[in-house]
Parts: sequence; C-alpha cells; structure tokens
Amino acid sequence: MLFHVRMDVNIPLDMDAAVAAEIKAREKAYSQGLQRSGKWRHIWRLAGEYANYSVFDVDSNQELHDILTELPLYPYMRISVQPLCRHPSSIREDDR
Amino acid sequence: MLFHVRMDVNIPLDMDAAVAAEIKAREKAYSQGLQRSGKWRHIWRLAGEYANYSVFDVDSNQELHDILTELPLYPYMRISVQPLCRHPSSIREDDR
Amino acid sequence: MLFHVRMDVNIPLDMDAAVAAEIKAREKAYSQGLQRSGKWRHIWRLAGEYANYSVFDVDSNQELHDILTELPLYPYMRISVQPLCRHPSSIREDDR
Amino acid sequence: MLFHVRMDVNIPLDMDAAVAAEIKAREKAYSQGLQRSGKWRHIWRLAGEYANYSVFDVDSNQELHDILTELPLYPYMRISVQPLCRHPSSIREDDR
Amino acid sequence: MLFHVRMDVNIPLDMDAAVAAEIKAREKAYSQGLQRSGKWRHIWRLAGEYANYSVFDVDSNQELHDILTELPLYPYMRISVQPLCRHPSSIREDDR
Amino acid sequence: MLFHVRMDVNIPLDMDAAVAAEIKAREKAYSQGLQRSGKWRHIWRLAGEYANYSVFDVDSNQELHDILTELPLYPYMRISVQPLCRHPSSIREDDR
Amino acid sequence: MLFHVRMDVNIPLDMDAAVAAEIKAREKAYSQGLQRSGKWRHIWRLAGEYANYSVFDVDSNQELHDILTELPLYPYMRISVQPLCRHPSSIREDDR
Amino acid sequence: MLFHVRMDVNIPLDMDAAVAAEIKAREKAYSQGLQRSGKWRHIWRLAGEYANYSVFDVDSNQELHDILTELPLYPYMRISVQPLCRHPSSIREDDR
Amino acid sequence: MLFHVRMDVNIPLDMDAAVAAEIKAREKAYSQGLQRSGKWRHIWRLAGEYANYSVFDVDSNQELHDILTELPLYPYMRISVQPLCRHPSSIREDDR
Amino acid sequence: MLFHVRMDVNIPLDMDAAVAAEIKAREKAYSQGLQRSGKWRHIWRLAGEYANYSVFDVDSNQELHDILTELPLYPYMRISVQPLCRHPSSIREDDR
Repeated sequence: MLFHVRMDVNIPLDMDAAVAAEIKAREKAYSQGLQRSGKWRHIWRLAGEYANYSVFDVDSNQELHDILTELPLYPYMRISVQPLCRHPSSIREDDR
Repeated sequence: MLFHVRMDVNIPLDMDAAVAAEIKAREKAYSQGLQRSGKWRHIWRLAGEYANYSVFDVDSNQELHDILTELPLYPYMRISVQPLCRHPSSIREDDR
Repeated sequence: MLFHVRMDVNIPLDMDAAVAAEIKAREKAYSQGLQRSGKWRHIWRLAGEYANYSVFDVDSNQELHDILTELPLYPYMRISVQPLCRHPSSIREDDR
Repeated sequence: MLFHVRMDVNIPLDMDAAVAAEIKAREKAYSQGLQRSGKWRHIWRLAGEYANYSVFDVDSNQELHDILTELPLYPYMRISVQPLCRHPSSIREDDR
Repeated sequence: MLFHVRMDVNIPLDMDAAVAAEIKAREKAYSQGLQRSGKWRHIWRLAGEYANYSVFDVDSNQELHDILTELPLYPYMRISVQPLCRHPSSIREDDR
Repeated sequence: MLFHVRMDVNIPLDMDAAVAAEIKAREKAYSQGLQRSGKWRHIWRLAGEYANYSVFDVDSNQELHDILTELPLYPYMRISVQPLCRHPSSIREDDR
Repeated sequence: MLFHVRMDVNIPLDMDAAVAAEIKAREKAYSQGLQRSGKWRHIWRLAGEYANYSVFDVDSNQELHDILTELPLYPYMRISVQPLCRHPSSIREDDR
Repeated sequence: MLFHVRMDVNIPLDMDAAVAAEIKAREKAYSQGLQRSGKWRHIWRLAGEYANYSVFDVDSNQELHDILTELPLYPYMRISVQPLCRHPSSIREDDR
Repeated sequence: MLFHVRMDVNIPLDMDAAVAAEIKAREKAYSQGLQRSGKWRHIWRLAGEYANYSVFDVDSNQELHDILTELPLYPYMRISVQPLCRHPSSIREDDR
Repeated sequence: MLFHVRMDVNIPLDMDAAVAAEIKAREKAYSQGLQRSGKWRHIWRLAGEYANYSVFDVDSNQELHDILTELPLYPYMRISVQPLCRHPSSIREDDR
C-alpha cells in the first residue's frame, strides 16, 4: 500500500556540526536499509530545498507511522502524508 | 530530468456525460502512450480525490510544458510543478 | 485500518429539489449500509455546516477510495483524507 | 455533547529528556482516566505526525475547556475545537 | 451555553429582487423571534461587509445546528462556529 | 461605538512563574476596571484556547488603541480588530 | 475618525457594457461628492489591479458602513476595513 | 510617484529597554525628517496593532528601497509594498 | 524602472473558440510591440501553467498600470505587481 | 534551461556583524562569478524587502540545486523554484 510523504528538514542553525553530521549519517543508513527492503520505494530531493518527496510501500498506517517517527531527523522535520492508490490509467500493476 | 506534478481535475458538473467519457478516454490513451515511452514515469491517484501525483522524465522544461498542455483534460486541471533531483540517500541511480 | 475523512457538501443552488432529495436519499442508504458493515465506523455533523467528520475502517487505500468515489453526493463534495493509527495512550485496542 | 479536537504537540527541542518523559507519563495517565470515565471518547494518532484527533463527550463548553487546559502537555500544544452533532444518517443513537 | 458565530451572506447577483426581499424579511422575523426568546443573545454587523458576528445561548450543539440550518438565508451563507466559555476575568456571571 | 477584538495570548514558555502571575493579576484588574466603566462590554474565552473575543464600546479608534496597548499582556498578544455596527435585525437599541 | 478601506471590484464578464458604464458613472459621481464633502479623504488605484485603497474620515462605524453599502459598485466588491489612529510620529495633526 | 507600504514591527521581547527607546527615538526623527521633505506623505497607526500604513512619494523604486532599508527599526520589521496610481475618480491632482 | 509582474490567465471554458483566438492574436501583437519598444523587457511562461512572469521597464507606476489594463486578455487575468531595484550584487548596470 | 527563483534572506538578529559581513562578501563574489559565467542570468532586489527574484540558466535541475545549496547565505534563506519556458509571444529566441 503506497503513501506519498513530503519531509521538510529544519536543523537548528546552532546545532554542533559534528552532531549534525552524525545524525545525517544515521538518517542515510536508516533510509537506505528501508529502500533495500522495498518499504521506501522512492525518494527525490526538491530542487533548491532541504526537503524530499518519498513514496512508501507498507502494510498499514501504523507501519508507516513507526518508520517515520524512527527517522533520526524526525525531531527536525515537518511531515505530511497522503495515501495513494493505483491510478486507473497506469500501465504498471505494481504502482498499486 | 525528473519533475513532480500534481494535477487536480475539475470537470464542470453540467458537462454532457458522453463528451466527458470521450475526453477521459483520450486522456487515458495519451497518458499510457507517454508512460510506455518512459516520459511519464509514475502516476498515482490521491485516495478520495480526483487528483494525481505524477513524475515525468523529460529533457527540458519546455518538453514538460508541451506534454502537460496537450493533456485532453488540461482545460479542466489545476497543475503545480516541482523540479526534482536524485536524492543523495537514494540507492538507485535512475531515480535521478 | 482507520482513516479520518472530512466531507464538505456543496449542492448547486439551482439543483431541482426532487433531484436533490433523491440523491440525498441514496446517499443515506449507501452510508447506512457501510455503517452496518463496519466499514464506516463514525459519522458526525459539524455544527452549523453542511459537512461531516467520518472515520472509516478499511483494508486498504484503494478500498477507501472506492467507497468515497461511489458516494451519490461525491460530485458535490470536497474531501480530505488523513490516515490514522491507534494512539499509544488509547485504552481501547479496537481504535486501532 | 460531542466535540472534535485536534491537538498538535510541539515540545521544545532542548527540553530535558527526563522532564519530557515525566510530562508525557502524566499526560498518558490523565488521558486514560478521562477515557475510562467516558469523557474522552476517542483518540487517534495522525500517521507521521505528533498530533491527534480526539472526540470528547462533555456537558458543556466550560467542561471541555477545563479538561483541555489541564492537560500536562497543554503549554506545548496548538488546539482547535469543533462542536459536533449526531449526523442524520448515523445508525447509532449514541454518536450524538 | 454560548457560541460565537460568524455568518457571511452571498446572495447570487441574479436573484430576483422580490424573492430576495421576501427571504430577507423572513430572515429578520426569524432572527428577532430568537432574540426575544433569548437564544440569539447578540448580533452585530461588520462595518462594510454583508456579514455578522452573533452570540447564541443554547442548550446543546444540536440546538445551535438546528437554529442555524433553519435560517432563511442559510443556503447563501458561509458559517463558522466557535464554542465560548465565561472568561475568568469577566465581571458578569451571565456571560457564561 | 462598538469594536470586535480577538486577542491571542502567547506567554514565553520560560517566563518566571511569579512574573507571569503578577502580569496576569494586573491584566485582570485592568480588564475589570474597564468592564465596570462600560468600555469593555463583553469578554469570552474561546473554548480550549488561550484567547478571547471581546467587544469594546469606545468613543474613537484612538481610545480603542490606547486601551489595547496598555494591556499588561499586550507585548505577548496578537490582536485583530473589526469595527461593528448595530445590525438592522437587532431588537436592541444599545447593541449599536 | 479615519478608516483604511481596500475595495476589489469584480464586475461579471457578461454584464452589458452600457449597464456597466452607467454603474461606473454613478460610482464616480458618488465618490466625488464624498471626496468634496471631506468624508472620502483619499483614493488610490493599485497599479495593475481593479482595486483601490481609500481613507475615509467619518463620525462612526455606522456612517462608514452606510457610505460603503451605498456604493453603486458595492454588489460587485470585496471590501476590508481597518480602523486607523494618528501615528505618534506623524508631523500632521489632521492625519488623526 | 506614490507607494503604499505596510510595516509590522516586532521588537524582540528581551531587548534592553534603553536600547529600544534609543532606536525608537531615531526612528521617529528619521520619519519626521522624511515627512517634512514630502517623501513620506502619510503615516497612520493600525488601531490595536504595532503596525502602520504609510504612503511614500518618491522618484523611483530604488529611492523607496533606500528609504525603507535605512529605517532604524528595519531589522525588526516585516514590510510589504504596493505601487499606487492616481485614481480616475480622484478629485485631487496631487494624489497622483 | 523595473517591475516584476505575474499574470494568470483564466479564459471562460465556454468562450467561443474564434473569439478566443482573436483576443489571443491581439494580445500577442500588443505584447510584441511593447517588447520591441523596450517597455516589456522579459516574458517567460511558467512550465505547466497558463501564466507568465514578466519584467517591465517603465517611467512610472501609472505607465505600468496603463500598459497592463490595456492588455486584450486583461479582463481574464489575475495580476500581481512587485517593484524591483537593481541588486547590489548584480554585474549589470542595466538590470536597474 | 531557465528557472525563476525567489530567495528570502533571514539572518538571525544576534549574528556577529563581522561574521555577517564576511558571509555577505562571499555571497556577492559567488553570485558575481555565476553571473559572469552566464548561469545566473538575472538578479533583482524586491523593493523594501531583503529578498530577490533571480533567473538561472542551467543544464539540469541538479545543477540548479547544487548552485543554490552552495550559496553562502543558503542556511538563512527560504527558496522557491519555478521552471520556465520560452513564452510563445516572446520576440527573443534566447529568453528560452
């Protein structure tokens, strides 16, 4: 089941650079693990912004919530979620 | 080069049903042709709304504009466009 | 799986009264059938507005979309959808 | 008498973790007491957000206000309230 | 129990003048009856706008909803409702 | 001459509790003095929010401005003002 | 007593040109009469828009309301009103 | 050439009172100098708000920008600018 | 003197195609005349939208207003204007 | 390929003046290098605001993103991006 998620990241300007780097490294590893498992189907950067559009493929709203709230950058994010369906004009069965 | 597009469709309530059906059939054929060519990479329905999120893979802003304005439903759509980049955390080279 | 849905109804002022009454009667029957089946868990009127907050319990985003777009009043509605999870402070297991 | 309430929680990033944990524990106990008494009829988490939709069943606007302003997390919340009525299509008398 | 209500009136420009006058006359009589009964505590015009702020004193959300939806101008109004409480600094017991 | 005023109070989370209590006590005394003089005709709490709707009866815009800017909580408030008139449907001459 | 007013005019596209011209001529005469009497202190066009900012000098909210609602173009206007005071830095006594 | 400017002032709550007083004194002197020169044609306080509407009469956009950015309170202001024209209904040639 | 203008075009869906074509032809000729004269410095289409961003170089607000309101498509446009200055980092003197 | 970019700068009020001056000097040098290379086609100041409209001419969304995120002032900016096309009414081939 697919969900469209927009994440806007807003790290405080006075966060220690080493701390920020460590959180971002954990974020990247966490994201890539979920991408490899197929849960995090797509992630794109919005040009010019510290933000992404992502598509998740999960079994339930609860699973989506757990994945998002465990993001290392979650405390610094504003998140909006939109449930998706396969589009009737889609030629692909798995963009369900 | 990828672009995120949201399309909200608003067909007038008094449009003749046969006319509407004909336009939607042309829209579907047009969309599927572009999906098969690889230009229209993804299309998802927003649950509960007559709207979609799409991702296009085009060579230029101009090509995107031409594709969108030739949509049979274009006169009834509100469209917003967001240029995308490959995300540095993506594990896939082609989600560029 | 639960979803919070807000529906705002906007029937054209010039719709024939008998036509409107017939659509509303079908809407009520359709809604009550889904309530009896357990799919439409709650429906409340917003005081002073022609609008409702509802909670649906469905198996997927697609099932929610199908239920909503088959509403007899759907062409006259503006709809917004929010996926829900069981709250960690809830004392009830079935408000999942 | 029912009220729909949305609560968005925004705990300062620099709050001491032990202090935050203690406030959240009191919040949970307070909420569960009100749920058991029947005053707090429903509480759901919004997927991906530190926010909830709740439905309260109280005797007056004043009782609702008192309950909300005594929430341990109240100083960190943005709250919006919407009075509800039983929907004429509801099949349940007690969703009044 | 008090509620703050804002009503914005938007009568279609092409409504027959005699029809409009008749609806407004019924609106006035209906409003004044409710004012005399004490249910409609206050009504003020917003300077320069076809809109009012009103304060209602009713027994329940349902009674407020019934009063508002029976307004002769209701089909032409946009309404927003805000439940009120007696303010702790108020010197008057009956502004409850 | 009547004015509708909405005041939203936002005291900094780190203000010393004794300081806050002292400011609120002065605010209450100031408000009650103006209520007794008839300048501050109504004050209601918005259920669930640290905000009020008030109605002032003053001789001029300037008098309203002076009253508002001398509120002890003024530095912590967001204020919006709307001039009112007696409504043509009002049954009361003094809700002018 | 001064008020700042913004008026946005939106004449229906299908209004008969002669009717529109007649309404505009009456609007101009009405406005100029009020300017000559000193009630309508200033009127400026917003560059590029069919809208104006005006400053009125009236004795009461009610007088302002009466002036505005008698504008020949009033049925086609969206209006917003802001009460003004003399600014403490003003060098002119009569910009009160 | 006239410009309509809205300035909203937001001085930090923790600014030293003497510093604030000194900045405001410089602001007042600066404003009054420009009023005397005819560049700053009008300034009005918005009732209840720490904000003003002003009208400037300058030779160019650049001159307006220079005047505004040299305001002693500029770092604490949110500013919006609207170019004006003489209104065709104005009876005054110099409200150009 | 430069101005940034956004124009959104919204031609009624039921306008006769020949009428629309004639208006658009006049619009194009009018725009190109102003581009050749140097008044209309830039015009760009927003990808996917029936809208443009333009930059005008005019002697006054009034000249800008006259140019815009004489656009053949003006009755179908929503327009917003922003006065510009030469940027202190610009390497070009004539982007004044 | 052209992009319209709006940048709003918001440097913290308490930033050390020498630090701010150094960042701005680097920003200016960086911007002028890109202007000389032709990548940053236009930059204009919005009158009265610490903001600019710019037009970039880049080969891809990615190149635009890289240019923007390397701006020395980027951490203090809010940025919005709009892809542009040559307008069909443009008389210039290179405003593509």
